[in-house]
Amino acid sequence: MLKIVILGTGNLAKHLYNAFSKAKEVNMAQVVGRNLEALQQFSEHCIISNDFETIVDADVYVIAVKDDVIDEVSKHLSNKKGIVAHTSGAISLSAIQPTNKGVFYPLQTFTKGKAVDFSTIPICIEANEEKSLETLKILATSISENVYHIDSEQRKKLHLAAVFVNNFTNYLYGIGEELCLEEGLSFDLLKPLIMETADKVQTMSPYEAQTGPARRNDIKSMEEHLKLLSKKEHITLYKLLSQAIKQTHEKEL
Amino acid sequence: MLKIVILGTGNLAKHLYNAFSKAKEVNMAQVVGRNLEALQQFSEHCIISNDFETIVDADVYVIAVKDDVIDEVSKHLSNKKGIVAHTSGAISLSAIQPTNKGVFYPLQTFTKGKAVDFSTIPICIEANEEKSLETLKILATSISENVYHIDSEQRKKLHLAAVFVNNFTNYLYGIGEELCLEEGLSFDLLKPLIMETADKVQTMSPYEAQTGPARRNDIKSMEEHLKLLSKKEHITLYKLLSQAIKQTHEKEL
Repeated sequence: MLKIVILGTGNLAKHLYNAFSKAKEVNMAQVVGRNLEALQQFSEHCIISNDFETIVDADVYVIAVKDDVIDEVSKHLSNKKGIVAHTSGAISLSAIQPTNKGVFYPLQTFTKGKAVDFSTIPICIEANEEKSLETLKILATSISENVYHIDSEQRKKLHLAAVFVNNFTNYLYGIGEELCLEEGLSFDLLKPLIMETADKVQTMSPYEAQTGPARRNDIKSMEEHLKLLSKKEHITLYKLLSQAIKQTHEKEL
Repeated sequence: MLKIVILGTGNLAKHLYNAFSKAKEVNMAQVVGRNLEALQQFSEHCIISNDFETIVDADVYVIAVKDDVIDEVSKHLSNKKGIVAHTSGAISLSAIQPTNKGVFYPLQTFTKGKAVDFSTIPICIEANEEKSLETLKILATSISENVYHIDSEQRKKLHLAAVFVNNFTNYLYGIGEELCLEEGLSFDLLKPLIMETADKVQTMSPYEAQTGPARRNDIKSMEEHLKLLSKKEHITLYKLLSQAIKQTHEKEL
């Protein structure tokens, strides 16, 4: 049985707490955070504390706080023997101050109040000791079927890739919504297409899945589209993305 | 009972044929196309023909061919009394040559061999006669729960919006895959995130759902990301999309 302390009370902390509380191999021992009100939601399955000097002894301390306070929070754990692991995609293993360092990065977007199936979420682990890596692997496997050993350099690139497929994709959804609203149309019209586009690349490479005027180099359609756009940044994006798609598929034309 | 003829033998023709064949209100009468080999897959539920001069009489002729041959195909139906409807997002109602004109545009991406649930697909209909619109509505309702009356101008904008949320989004998935492969990582790592990103906007506006360094105006993280990118077009895209997200959410910062 692995004894776990979570540091942090945000979205990710809550989702991890829910998953760990259900896992048979895990003793979800304590949640520590500054925000007393946020702490209350963790009181059902473990003890809570807003005092970083009263952290209980555990096998793994999971730091689920904003990137820029990870090293500060980790300092409170300098005397602990357990693994101190952060949960960030962008931060190196070395940001952890205590000697027994780890990373426990679930590659997913977490939304307040929206349940996620942790079993499918890839968890990327890293540690500076072989034994700690084994422990993190047991912990990750207790809540997910997709556990990957990934080093800090790889993780940074992965995090960047996540920005493209999550943050930037979401921004394109926003443009879609905006164009609908301009015509008095509901964004609902685009929702099945959005789901199918995501579903398609679950079994097919994005290269194969690519369709549209740019892939066909259908200049007439692209010109028609550009006439319909009024915002400067939408026009620039349309041109840039179409050009990139065209180049990627040029050899087929 | 509506008697239907489909003109065309591609992906969309096949998906429509499957849906119409199952619909109680529809008599899937004939599929007409030039490609004899492709025609074979339609022979189970109706008659097939590669002769455009032997098209049977029907209530609706659904033209499911490439945009640039719609008007040409529609000319073969000049003497018909039924509604001649194309299925394109980008083409005006007026491209149809016969007098009884319509549009029957299912807003979805169709993949060969990949089943789709037609009941959730928005079908956008348009006609130049009130009675024809009613008929198209009955036909659309027979296979989908989401039927919208949308005019040609609106449809063009919708089609453009679809390019953003489908074609361009898929290209971003491709960049994600490329960045993974550069580090020897599997694209599988990003798949749950891609699904969740799409799922999130089914119940939340993209504006609300937006996360990431650009939304937080986290300059340090964005600079780190730019250092990791090597391709010029990826750098340009990263900057452009980050800037656009930042501007959209500027007031909150």
